[in-house]
Amino acid sequence: MSKQLKIGIIGIGRIGKLHGNNLSFSVPNAKIEAVADLSLNDEMRAWAQGVGILKIYDNPAQVFADPAIEAVFICSSSESHADLIIQAARAKKHIFCEKPIHTDAGRIREALAVVKEAGVKLQVGFVRRFDHNHKKVRDVVASGRMGKPHIVKVTSRDPEQQSMEYIGTSGGIFLDMTVHDFDMVRYLSGSEVTEVTAIGTIKIDARIREFSDVDTAIVLLKFENGAIGVIDNSRAARYGYDQRVEVHCDKGCVQDYNDLIDTAMISTKDGIYSERPRWFFLERYNQAFIAEAQAFTDAILNDTEPSVTGIDGLMPVLIAKAAQKSLNEGRMVKLSELI
Amino acid sequence: MSKQLKIGIIGIGRIGKLHGNNLSFSVPNAKIEAVADLSLNDEMRAWAQGVGILKIYDNPAQVFADPAIEAVFICSSSESHADLIIQAARAKKHIFCEKPIHTDAGRIREALAVVKEAGVKLQVGFVRRFDHNHKKVRDVVASGRMGKPHIVKVTSRDPEQQSMEYIGTSGGIFLDMTVHDFDMVRYLSGSEVTEVTAIGTIKIDARIREFSDVDTAIVLLKFENGAIGVIDNSRAARYGYDQRVEVHCDKGCVQDYNDLIDTAMISTKDGIYSERPRWFFLERYNQAFIAEAQAFTDAILNDTEPSVTGIDGLMPVLIAKAAQKSLNEGRMVKLSELI
Amino acid sequence: MSKQLKIGIIGIGRIGKLHGNNLSFSVPNAKIEAVADLSLNDEMRAWAQGVGILKIYDNPAQVFADPAIEAVFICSSSESHADLIIQAARAKKHIFCEKPIHTDAGRIREALAVVKEAGVKLQVGFVRRFDHNHKKVRDVVASGRMGKPHIVKVTSRDPEQQSMEYIGTSGGIFLDMTVHDFDMVRYLSGSEVTEVTAIGTIKIDARIREFSDVDTAIVLLKFENGAIGVIDNSRAARYGYDQRVEVHCDKGCVQDYNDLIDTAMISTKDGIYSERPRWFFLERYNQAFIAEAQAFTDAILNDTEPSVTGIDGLMPVLIAKAAQKSLNEGRMVKLSELI
Amino acid sequence: MSKQLKIGIIGIGRIGKLHGNNLSFSVPNAKIEAVADLSLNDEMRAWAQGVGILKIYDNPAQVFADPAIEAVFICSSSESHADLIIQAARAKKHIFCEKPIHTDAGRIREALAVVKEAGVKLQVGFVRRFDHNHKKVRDVVASGRMGKPHIVKVTSRDPEQQSMEYIGTSGGIFLDMTVHDFDMVRYLSGSEVTEVTAIGTIKIDARIREFSDVDTAIVLLKFENGAIGVIDNSRAARYGYDQRVEVHCDKGCVQDYNDLIDTAMISTKDGIYSERPRWFFLERYNQAFIAEAQAFTDAILNDTEPSVTGIDGLMPVLIAKAAQKSLNEGRMVKLSELI
Repeated sequence: MSKQLKIGIIGIGRIGKLHGNNLSFSVPNAKIEAVADLSLNDEMRAWAQGVGILKIYDNPAQVFADPAIEAVFICSSSESHADLIIQAARAKKHIFCEKPIHTDAGRIREALAVVKEAGVKLQVGFVRRFDHNHKKVRDVVASGRMGKPHIVKVTSRDPEQQSMEYIGTSGGIFLDMTVHDFDMVRYLSGSEVTEVTAIGTIKIDARIREFSDVDTAIVLLKFENGAIGVIDNSRAARYGYDQRVEVHCDKGCVQDYNDLIDTAMISTKDGIYSERPRWFFLERYNQAFIAEAQAFTDAILNDTEPSVTGIDGLMPVLIAKAAQKSLNEGRMVKLSELI
Repeated sequence: MSKQLKIGIIGIGRIGKLHGNNLSFSVPNAKIEAVADLSLNDEMRAWAQGVGILKIYDNPAQVFADPAIEAVFICSSSESHADLIIQAARAKKHIFCEKPIHTDAGRIREALAVVKEAGVKLQVGFVRRFDHNHKKVRDVVASGRMGKPHIVKVTSRDPEQQSMEYIGTSGGIFLDMTVHDFDMVRYLSGSEVTEVTAIGTIKIDARIREFSDVDTAIVLLKFENGAIGVIDNSRAARYGYDQRVEVHCDKGCVQDYNDLIDTAMISTKDGIYSERPRWFFLERYNQAFIAEAQAFTDAILNDTEPSVTGIDGLMPVLIAKAAQKSLNEGRMVKLSELI
Repeated sequence: MSKQLKIGIIGIGRIGKLHGNNLSFSVPNAKIEAVADLSLNDEMRAWAQGVGILKIYDNPAQVFADPAIEAVFICSSSESHADLIIQAARAKKHIFCEKPIHTDAGRIREALAVVKEAGVKLQVGFVRRFDHNHKKVRDVVASGRMGKPHIVKVTSRDPEQQSMEYIGTSGGIFLDMTVHDFDMVRYLSGSEVTEVTAIGTIKIDARIREFSDVDTAIVLLKFENGAIGVIDNSRAARYGYDQRVEVHCDKGCVQDYNDLIDTAMISTKDGIYSERPRWFFLERYNQAFIAEAQAFTDAILNDTEPSVTGIDGLMPVLIAKAAQKSLNEGRMVKLSELI
Repeated sequence: MSKQLKIGIIGIGRIGKLHGNNLSFSVPNAKIEAVADLSLNDEMRAWAQGVGILKIYDNPAQVFADPAIEAVFICSSSESHADLIIQAARAKKHIFCEKPIHTDAGRIREALAVVKEAGVKLQVGFVRRFDHNHKKVRDVVASGRMGKPHIVKVTSRDPEQQSMEYIGTSGGIFLDMTVHDFDMVRYLSGSEVTEVTAIGTIKIDARIREFSDVDTAIVLLKFENGAIGVIDNSRAARYGYDQRVEVHCDKGCVQDYNDLIDTAMISTKDGIYSERPRWFFLERYNQAFIAEAQAFTDAILNDTEPSVTGIDGLMPVLIAKAAQKSLNEGRMVKLSELI
């Protein structure tokens, strides 16, 4: 291997450690030069040492100031993302940033402007694009062999509801959960969303009403290329992480189904029993997280455009806001109303 | 066999002959006493004789006047259904009527009133309720073992577009195609639709624009019981008749997939190839047509309520009209606006 | 319809009535002219009248003597088949005969000689060849597109054990059950079996030991074309009728799986549940029985060779005897030892 | 992490590096203390340094002499395994040894005797036992919930033929390929093989005839517990690594099917296309290799019996020899003839 990308990780909570392990053990041309966390504790220190990271900082500024570091992984809490992108860009570090960049579109645009001016690369952490199943569906559609897309469908259901604390600060189902699916429909359709209509209902936990939120939702979408689409969400599927996509095109349909825990089938007089889907995103998308980190590393080392750009970070947030507006006002909302 | 229901078939085009063959060969307690068609021709006559039907009339009135006949199958052209229901009911014949009863809700109500007054039974031909796959999904949901329904989804795509002549007089995609799916979501959810939003696009044949119609559509639905739903339609799926339903509930998901032409799998270095879904409704629902005729026959002979009632004939037409209104006006439409 | 084949059915027990119903209702160019049964009773008479058969005889000789009859379906008890074939052939009737022709190879050869001399056509009732799934596998192999066959596999398990009375007079598992699979491997491989090795065990009901029989068996096969094969059998699969075939060839593998009762899937935290295979041969092969009767009718009317010939009736019996000899003597047995 | 097992790897060819990477990156309680290879070269050195291994030896004796090392992974060429086991045992190191221990049963017994005397633990590298699919099948059978096993079936086909050089020194298909399946049937059935019958054919490459070997084979098996079984093998399946197992029991059947490359389905008028199985053992069993190394590490650290013992290393070799004898002599062979 010729050259390794020197990386600093900012924020070493669950997702920071996940990226840290992947970069250390599964991305051969990446090297973690340093980690930083404002709430650095012994457990984080022990993890970093175990992985073999020598520089352990308690302030992101130390990462930005370190000339050995070429790129950063921003894995801190969501509200800090935009600020850290701006600081990283000014320090001329390439940036991988966990989603969302920010929940305020203005702040996202500001961060993207600084990135552009600094001439650094930015990849946003929409990890599902790197899932082997979804990517295959998208690649078949993008190849044009099925003709033009007509209908784009995404089923996306979490296995179990998160805590009420989490939900209360999540920004609502569309910004928290569906934002991934908004990215997915853009990825699958190869087109921008122009209009959304959302309906929702509370079926899982009545306490969510306090947050003016819903736990079960369907969103209709129109795309610039004339295709139409639909996403359905649930915060509690019970049987695992239900993540299926489908694109109906001129010449037929491309779809995927869930990865199951195993392929065993038990046939008895009561029927055929098989395993459920993998439990949640850590299980389903574990290989996708590696592929995502590998793609970022390769894009920087080869000086190519990252596959998930700043615009890809901005658009799903705008669509989420339009969906929320549609739900609140009981009408179809054009994206152009928000831009 | 104790007793056979004496049936007269009105209209012996494609669907009339289909029911005629099923009643003759596959419904042991049914007997076709007579057939009638205003456009009776030699081919119809030959078919009826081949099946062993002795009374071949050129006017439905002869069927209504025949005291040997206990029930009629109305299989004539759609616009005649309501009139024939009224005449049949007044003649005290039990009625199986192909869908739709009428495209005008007022005329449907009028016919239902006469049926009620006459005290005869009426079953409407929503054959998909008798499909072994859809029925299993519905039975599991209706059993309550999965808890309450949250999301109801129907995928419904025809294999190839019908002729422009057909489409031009079809009443539009919602009254012609989706009407079956509107019945299906009522059947699956066990609840009434309260509100619909429809979007559509033209992706298959631009000539459809002349009829202010679309060939690809998605309809969002809200139900009285708080569930939400979605239907997606295409007039040309290319790979066969795509007929899948899914109900997500408190405890998990119940869904079906398509019946394939056969179960053979061919594995080569290029991948695994298997057969496509059965081609169209005659192939997919052939057993369902038999089950439907059997259910009607049993309901009459056993004096029980038919499983698809007059209200089941009315509601999908109202929903279709709401969907059309939503598409035309670009807004969510409450069913109450139409009633 | 130009012309109908006039058929007489001999033996109107379960299988005779099955063919009778199929010929009456599902094979348009067949017509049942007469039925005959030596144990004719009221129930048989009622069935025949219900189906519209006018000539109801109590002796097969009346069928053979009836000049209106062109072909016979021999559906009587197995031990009478060879005799009836001989009588039918001498009466110049074309013959469909249920399997097996006889359990004595000499008697089969005798019957085939008379058939040949009489110049009538004979089709043997190996109905599985007409199953849509198995036929597709065979057609793909026979097309040559996968190259030459290497390995032929058949899984064949009954859902529940038959009664001990039945088993005691069945001639043993190989002549009773596996005989169908011996036909299937010849059909799939397009080659003759040259050598067999059988092993068996008693796992379901110890009483079978009295008949020196087994209830669970595996048979290894060598074919003239150099392919090898294996069949596994059980008299009690519990989960339905397990009927799967697989042919591995130069370029890959062609296989089928079971038709399930329906395609519904129920996903919960306990896993995914789906329906079991169709219960037994009446459910699994009901369409195949129709296709078989249709093929015979067409072959006679079009003067073409039936697709399952007299040799196809002879060879599986010889293989079954070789398998029994292998089981008894604990060694590989060459077919040439028996011929 | 409390304690890490200090491991020395002997032989750092393809499989040695595979275990090395897994132990380094995916087995948290394992630590590679040293590696040794008699043909140590720069590439091996670079790999070891990259993984962070500090002691890089050119002689296994250095590993055995190193008091810091608690256990060894024997990954050298097959013929050296028995000798190295003996040396490792005498040096009081716990042993993980790649399969086969030796092709000579006497040498295996000798090695096992030394292991026993030394009181060290030995695990043999039958990695398929750790595959999530096969393990699930076995666990269901072993739980007893399906009752007793009747029929055990293994389909095991390589994607592409190895080189003639490899095949010529492989010891024949049964010792090279089927040996894994012989382990699998023992694992699935929970019983010892008592008798085998093998047939084979040459269908892929005629040059294999020079080695008196075959490339396509089926092996029949009888088990001590009265179950019977069958394995079918091909050296060139073309469509990927076909690895399926099936156990038919009192109450039904437990089986698995292949992991596919992805779950995408493409439906067009030509049928439904999906991906083929994963290509070969590195792709299919990559997680199983990790689970295997984890299980060994845990067994040593927790002082429990390894899940694949020395007897598990011996028996498949004996069965392979019986299969070869059966093929050569054209008869059933009892294992007792070889012991």
